[in-house]
Amino acid sequence: MRILGIDPGLANMGWGVIEMVGPRLRHVANGIIKTKTGDLGARLLALHTGLSDVIAQHAPDAAAVEQTFVNKDGVATLKLGQARGIAMLVPAQAGLTIGEYAPNAVKKTVVGVGHAAKEQVQHMVKMQLPGVVFDGPDAADALAIAICHAHQRGVGTGLEKALKAQEMRVAG
Amino acid sequence: MRILGIDPGLANMGWGVIEMVGPRLRHVANGIIKTKTGDLGARLLALHTGLSDVIAQHAPDAAAVEQTFVNKDGVATLKLGQARGIAMLVPAQAGLTIGEYAPNAVKKTVVGVGHAAKEQVQHMVKMQLPGVVFDGPDAADALAIAICHAHQRGVGTGLEKALKAQEMRVAG
Repeated sequence: MRILGIDPGLANMGWGVIEMVGPRLRHVANGIIKTKTGDLGARLLALHTGLSDVIAQHAPDAAAVEQTFVNKDGVATLKLGQARGIAMLVPAQAGLTIGEYAPNAVKKTVVGVGHAAKEQVQHMVKMQLPGVVFDGPDAADALAIAICHAHQRGVGTGLEKALKAQEMRVAG
Repeated sequence: MRILGIDPGLANMGWGVIEMVGPRLRHVANGIIKTKTGDLGARLLALHTGLSDVIAQHAPDAAAVEQTFVNKDGVATLKLGQARGIAMLVPAQAGLTIGEYAPNAVKKTVVGVGHAAKEQVQHMVKMQLPGVVFDGPDAADALAIAICHAHQRGVGTGLEKALKAQEMRVAG
């Protein structure tokens, strides 16, 4: 089973595809779809085309999208919302089920605590996906979201154990 | 020239199509695409399909989308943003240019003042589009947005004069 994780953003839309192989995870691909400042319709169209291409190329069976908003800045939240609309639409058009996870839920699943630093999340993603090279921070986040979804679907006791060990290490 | 106006919303996406005939405007059609609470991907997909159908049926030459956000409520702004992403994407996919107007700009153009009541906006839309019957408030708003765009593109001196007269009446 293949899972597409998406970290939505108007300027940088991170994506990552992983595969569940029994109790383990395998990295398939990751990247960032970038759009430049300018016409909003053209930017959303570029995100739509880019994500559609990712799905066509890597054929995921499910998707997971980060659920986030910027509370104090209406303009920034609206911008993010528009990009997130595309991030939700494209998997829906492909007939995929879509999981939604808040950033803290992703961290809690991947690292073991809800308020982990970005570096720690990336470290744990690398441990889960040996040999992975991130296209950038947003692509790493997208892989973390995909891992979170895999865990929700029960990726196996291996991850469970690794998470518990990590939690103990972090807590201690 | 035909203009599609869109009032974005996740539960109610208002749309209205008008035609510029020399210095006058003519109503073509208006409606509301409704989605019910539930799976977000499915709702966005329904909005995408609905708006795509409107464009296929009424073949507009340009589009105009309301530019709005809810400042104090991040969750509501994100919801609106996601719907607005679809409202911007569909015309872009059809190759239409898209105008964006803040609510006050629409009111200022249609009624003559930026803080007009909803009833007054609807009254002026009816004056501009004789015989129009609104599918609902969101459809009326969408027609107002289309009228605003027509005015920006120079619908003719008739509208200009009517607006000036209205402004004087409101001011006096």
